[in-house]
Amino acid sequence: MNKKNSVFIATSLDGYIADKNGGVDWLHSIPNPDNDDMGYLEFTNSIDAIVMGRTTFETVCGFDVDWPYTKPVFVLSNTLHEIPQSYKGKAYLVKGKLTEILEEIYAKGLFRLYIDGGTTIRNFLKADLIDEMIITTIPVLLGGGIPLFTELPKSLDFECAAAKLFLGKVVQNRFVRRR
Amino acid sequence: MNKKNSVFIATSLDGYIADKNGGVDWLHSIPNPDNDDMGYLEFTNSIDAIVMGRTTFETVCGFDVDWPYTKPVFVLSNTLHEIPQSYKGKAYLVKGKLTEILEEIYAKGLFRLYIDGGTTIRNFLKADLIDEMIITTIPVLLGGGIPLFTELPKSLDFECAAAKLFLGKVVQNRFVRRR
Repeated sequence: MNKKNSVFIATSLDGYIADKNGGVDWLHSIPNPDNDDMGYLEFTNSIDAIVMGRTTFETVCGFDVDWPYTKPVFVLSNTLHEIPQSYKGKAYLVKGKLTEILEEIYAKGLFRLYIDGGTTIRNFLKADLIDEMIITTIPVLLGGGIPLFTELPKSLDFECAAAKLFLGKVVQNRFVRRR
Repeated sequence: MNKKNSVFIATSLDGYIADKNGGVDWLHSIPNPDNDDMGYLEFTNSIDAIVMGRTTFETVCGFDVDWPYTKPVFVLSNTLHEIPQSYKGKAYLVKGKLTEILEEIYAKGLFRLYIDGGTTIRNFLKADLIDEMIITTIPVLLGGGIPLFTELPKSLDFECAAAKLFLGKVVQNRFVRRR
């Protein structure tokens, strides 16, 4: 099985994943009457597991909805001591170096990983561990907020493998790492 | 004639228009054997005039090539006293408030304007004077540099009207202001 670390995320036109107040209401600024998932289900069907940071995990736990994932979720944290009881069997705590964590996940037969959460994505990019990024651009200039991308120790070449319009207004571009 | 202020620019995947050293070599990181202009000529044929800042003007003047524009160029500057002799009749100095400058240009029968240069684009966006942005994304994460977008006093809604792949690797998205 080929190993692949993928990002599937929405950003504003100016590259933010949350606005100045940490809000994400702008994600829904384009009317979506038929709840087009813009490829999310197809994407999640193609992956074996999810890797996310503690902040994203706690945000998802705080949503007033059922646990949204059908695949195992690995939560990166050096501060969390254990996964809360109600998420055991669904989410697993992992600690340490990213490469060691990946080996631990691969050892379970899970190779196609969905890397989620701003800090986690940035840390994977800093270590050049991202193979693919599917970025949905919500066409709004927020003018400030939490950026998806930050400083990198070296530049990383990708190529755009696909560009698709949703709802006639939202573009989703798929970038693949060129190595 | 409908007035339209357009941006036609390339950015890195992380939104920079120049790298950490001010360089733009990465613009050519994707092989382009047939010199595909990615719609540039078609775009420039559709505009009446160019509006750029002093920095961009001086950069273009410094290139060891013939003057590249066939349309009048309006140079925004509060420090430049006059256009150098060799550019007279091609470039025109304009000063003052953006809305007054635009009225001055419209009075010449020039309505479809190509707004160029990082600072000028940002100032037009701050004043909500951009109607269209054609952004070619060179698929490289530079990890730092001069960003196209910066802080805005308020968020601005656009819609993606078209997405096109060039050279099988470079995506160009056209965003139109929703008012």
